[in-house]
Amino acid sequence: MTSIDLNADLGEGFGRWRLTDDEGLLSVVTSANVACGFHAGDPATMRRVCELAAARGVAVGAQVSYRDLAGFGRRAMDVPPAELAAEVAYQIGALEVFARAAGARVAYVKPHGALYNRVVHDEAQAAAVVEGVLLAGGALPVLGLPGSRVLELAGKAGLPVVTEAFADRAYTDQGTLVPRGRDGAVIADPEAVVERSVGLARSGTVVARSGARIEVRARSLCVHGDTPGAVDLARRVRERLEAAGVRVEAFA
Amino acid sequence: MTSIDLNADLGEGFGRWRLTDDEGLLSVVTSANVACGFHAGDPATMRRVCELAAARGVAVGAQVSYRDLAGFGRRAMDVPPAELAAEVAYQIGALEVFARAAGARVAYVKPHGALYNRVVHDEAQAAAVVEGVLLAGGALPVLGLPGSRVLELAGKAGLPVVTEAFADRAYTDQGTLVPRGRDGAVIADPEAVVERSVGLARSGTVVARSGARIEVRARSLCVHGDTPGAVDLARRVRERLEAAGVRVEAFA
Amino acid sequence: MTSIDLNADLGEGFGRWRLTDDEGLLSVVTSANVACGFHAGDPATMRRVCELAAARGVAVGAQVSYRDLAGFGRRAMDVPPAELAAEVAYQIGALEVFARAAGARVAYVKPHGALYNRVVHDEAQAAAVVEGVLLAGGALPVLGLPGSRVLELAGKAGLPVVTEAFADRAYTDQGTLVPRGRDGAVIADPEAVVERSVGLARSGTVVARSGARIEVRARSLCVHGDTPGAVDLARRVRERLEAAGVRVEAFA
Amino acid sequence: MTSIDLNADLGEGFGRWRLTDDEGLLSVVTSANVACGFHAGDPATMRRVCELAAARGVAVGAQVSYRDLAGFGRRAMDVPPAELAAEVAYQIGALEVFARAAGARVAYVKPHGALYNRVVHDEAQAAAVVEGVLLAGGALPVLGLPGSRVLELAGKAGLPVVTEAFADRAYTDQGTLVPRGRDGAVIADPEAVVERSVGLARSGTVVARSGARIEVRARSLCVHGDTPGAVDLARRVRERLEAAGVRVEAFA
Repeated sequence: MTSIDLNADLGEGFGRWRLTDDEGLLSVVTSANVACGFHAGDPATMRRVCELAAARGVAVGAQVSYRDLAGFGRRAMDVPPAELAAEVAYQIGALEVFARAAGARVAYVKPHGALYNRVVHDEAQAAAVVEGVLLAGGALPVLGLPGSRVLELAGKAGLPVVTEAFADRAYTDQGTLVPRGRDGAVIADPEAVVERSVGLARSGTVVARSGARIEVRARSLCVHGDTPGAVDLARRVRERLEAAGVRVEAFA
Repeated sequence: MTSIDLNADLGEGFGRWRLTDDEGLLSVVTSANVACGFHAGDPATMRRVCELAAARGVAVGAQVSYRDLAGFGRRAMDVPPAELAAEVAYQIGALEVFARAAGARVAYVKPHGALYNRVVHDEAQAAAVVEGVLLAGGALPVLGLPGSRVLELAGKAGLPVVTEAFADRAYTDQGTLVPRGRDGAVIADPEAVVERSVGLARSGTVVARSGARIEVRARSLCVHGDTPGAVDLARRVRERLEAAGVRVEAFA
Repeated sequence: MTSIDLNADLGEGFGRWRLTDDEGLLSVVTSANVACGFHAGDPATMRRVCELAAARGVAVGAQVSYRDLAGFGRRAMDVPPAELAAEVAYQIGALEVFARAAGARVAYVKPHGALYNRVVHDEAQAAAVVEGVLLAGGALPVLGLPGSRVLELAGKAGLPVVTEAFADRAYTDQGTLVPRGRDGAVIADPEAVVERSVGLARSGTVVARSGARIEVRARSLCVHGDTPGAVDLARRVRERLEAAGVRVEAFA
Repeated sequence: MTSIDLNADLGEGFGRWRLTDDEGLLSVVTSANVACGFHAGDPATMRRVCELAAARGVAVGAQVSYRDLAGFGRRAMDVPPAELAAEVAYQIGALEVFARAAGARVAYVKPHGALYNRVVHDEAQAAAVVEGVLLAGGALPVLGLPGSRVLELAGKAGLPVVTEAFADRAYTDQGTLVPRGRDGAVIADPEAVVERSVGLARSGTVVARSGARIEVRARSLCVHGDTPGAVDLARRVRERLEAAGVRVEAFA
C-alpha cells in the first residue's frame, strides 16, 4: 500500500501576531514544520505547538531559517557558512527542548523560505545547513526538494533525506518549481490541488506546466497553512488521498 | 579540604561586538556562564565558547536572560510567567546543542542581569525560571544568591541549588548586596577583592560595609569578566585561593 | 457645538504579520496612532499608513513604545530615562519622514501599551517621554490619560496636552481605568460602548463600575482596532456621535 | 587650493557594546557616518554622536544599512526594493531628530557594508536607496564609489553625489577595490596609507595593485574607525594632508 506524509508550516506567529491555524492543521497533517524563532515562532508558541503535535501523534520538525523576523525569512542572505551552521543548530536545539518536554523529539529538519530556495543550488549554504544538522546530533532527516544540493550533501554526510512535492505549485518539465511571481506558478483551484496530490502520491507523477506528465518522487507533500481556507484544503487533500487508498502517515 | 567554584560570564559579544576575553577567562574559571542569545551571545560564539570550555574541562552553564539585546538584559521586564518559562527553556535548549557537540553538556543555569536581580524577590518570575529549567529537563542546578526566591523554589521543585558570592561587591549586614550605584557598592581595589575571596572560601564570611563580619555561605564565587584587567584579577584570585589551601573546582 | 476626536492604533503589523484593518479604520477615525517599529510597525507599513491617512485628512500620531517586538510593547520595562528619551525621539523622527513624504506631518505623540500605563504614575519615565518629545522638536501635543504624570510634565514643559477616554473600558469612581484582567474591565456590549461614547463626548461623564456617574473630560476617544468587528464598532460610534450633534474631528 | 573631506564610520556600538572611538575620531574627521540602528547604533549613542559632531562642526551623515544587527550589516540581503526604500528613509528620519536637536542636520547619506557593495552594481537596490533618500526629503547628497550605480541613479534623480576613495584599500587597474579577503586587499602599513591619502587628494591618483598609477577622483577619503590605532592613523593622514597644502573640510 502506498503511503505519503503531509507536512505544513506551523507556529508561524510571533508574540501578538498569529498566522497559521495551528490546531486546525494539526488535525490534518502528519508532520509539523515548527518555526524556531528566526523568521517566526516565539518560545511560548513553540511549546504549545509541540504539545499539540505530540498529543495528536504528529511528527515535529525544525523549520530553520535565516535570522529575519522583518522579512519572515523570505529574503536571501549571504550568511557566512560557519555562522549559518551555528544558527541552524541553535534553532534545532531550542525546539528540541519543547519537543522533549511534550514527550516527543525533533524528528526532522526543513529549511524555510529563502534558505529553502537557496540550498537547492548554493553549495556553501547547503553544506552549512548539513553541518548545522550534524552539530545538533541525532542524525536528523532533512526534508527538501528532490535533486537539491542540500539533500545530496545530507545524504553524503550520512543523514536520511526526505523528498517533498508541492501539490499547489506548477512544475517545469525538468521537475523544478516554476518560481513564484511567474504566471501560473501557484495552482489556485482547490480541486486541481487535490487531484495533483493524489497523482503525486499514487503514481509519483504530476502534469507540468507544459502539459507533459513528469515524474516527481516525493515521500512528503507540503500543504500551505498561511492562506484562507488552508485547513479545509488540507483536509480535502487528506480525505481524497485516503479514499484513493493512500495511507497518510509521517515519514519519520 | 575546602573547595570553591569560580564562575564568570562569557561569550557576551554579539556578532561583530566582543565584550569578554573568553579564552583568558576560560584559563582561570571552573564554570562558564555562557550567554544564550537573549542579552548577548550569537550562535557561532556560543559554539566556540562551548568548544573551548569543553577542551579545558570548564563546566558550561546557561546564562539565561530577558530578551533584550539593546539593554544587555539589564532592564527589568514584566514578562508574563508562561512566556518567561518558555524563553528560559528555549535558551537552555539552544546552548545544549553546542555543549553536546563539544562533548560536554549544560551543567547548570544562571539567570543574568535584571532577571537575576528580579528573581531574588519576585515570586512569579522566580517560579517561571524554575519552570523553564524543569521544561529543559535534566534537573539542572540553579545558581543564585543565598536566600533568593529562585533558589528556594528550585529546591522545592527538586532541583539542585548552588549559592554564589561576589568578592568585588559590598554586602549589607543582612547579607544582601549593596545595590550598584550606591557609594562603595563595588570593591575596586584588587587586593581587597583577592582577600575577600579567600575569606569567603575559607571561612564563609566577609566584612560587610558596616565593618561587621557576616556569614555568606557560597559554593561558587563570581568573578567579573567585562572589566579591564578582569582576567588578571581572576587569576590572582585563583592563585591566592590555591595558596590558601582551597581547591578550585567546578561544583557541577 | 461639541466636538470630539476619534483615535485608533494603526499599522500594528510587522513584516508578514497584520493586525489592524488600517484602511477600514482610516475611513472612520480622525487621528491615527501609527506604530513606529518598536512594538510593531515596519517602515513599509508606516509609509503606507501615512499615505492613506494623509489622503483622507486623518491626523498622524507617533505611537511610541518600549523596544519589545516579542511582547508587543505590553511588558513594562525599566528603561533608564536617558535611553527612553532617545528611543522616543528616534521613533518620532522615523515616522516624521513618512508623514512628510505624504504631505502631512506628525501631529502628536501617544505612548503605547506598557509605556502608556507606566507614565501615568512613573515620574522618571514620564519625564523621559516628555524629554523625547522635546528632542524631536515641533512642540508636539502628547495624548494621554487625564491626571497622568506624563500630561502634567508635558504641560509644564510647554507642550500641548490632549486627554483621552476609553468608551469600552470600565472606570473607577476616581476616574481611573479598571485594570485589564479584572472582572468587567472591558465593556463587550457594542451598544453600551456606543452610548458611553456619546455620553463622554456630550456631557464629559460616564457611569463608573460602581454605578456612580463620574466626570471624565476628554478631547479624544480611543477606539480599539485590533479586535474582530473593530471597524464596524468604530463606525457605529462615529455615526451615533454625529447623530447626537457631536462634530467628529481631529484635535490636531 | 585643493580640498578633501575625511569621513569615518561612527557610533557603531549597540547598547552595552562599543566599537568605535567616537570622540577620538570626531577630533580628526570632517564627516561622521553615523550608524542609524539597523546594523549598529542605539538611539542614545546616535544622540551623543550628533551632539559631539555638532559641537566640533563635523558634518553628520546617515550611515544606512540592511536590518542586520547579528551580521553588522555585512551580509547581502535580497530586500525587496519597496521595503528597502522605506528602511532607508526610516533610518534617515531617526537620525535627523538627533542632528536637529544638536543644532545640525543630516548632511548626506552613505550606505553601509553589504548594502554599500551591493548598490555598486545592483540596479534595483541602488534605485531603492535613491528612492529612500528622496522620501526622506531635503535632496541629501549620496556618498559612494565613483562609477557606482547608486551614484549614477542618484545623479539622475537630481541628488548631489559625492565620490569617495579608500587610502587603505588596494585598487585594480579599473579603479575598483580589490575585494577583502584577497591578498593585499588591505594596506596595513600606516606610512603607505598616509602617502596614498596625499596622492589621492593632490593628484587624484593612486598606485594600483599592478603597479600602474590610476586615476581615482574623490571628494572624500574614508578612514576606518574600528581598528586598533584608527584614531592615530586618521590624525597622521590629516596632518600630512594639511602639510601638503590640502585643505581638509567637509564636502557638505
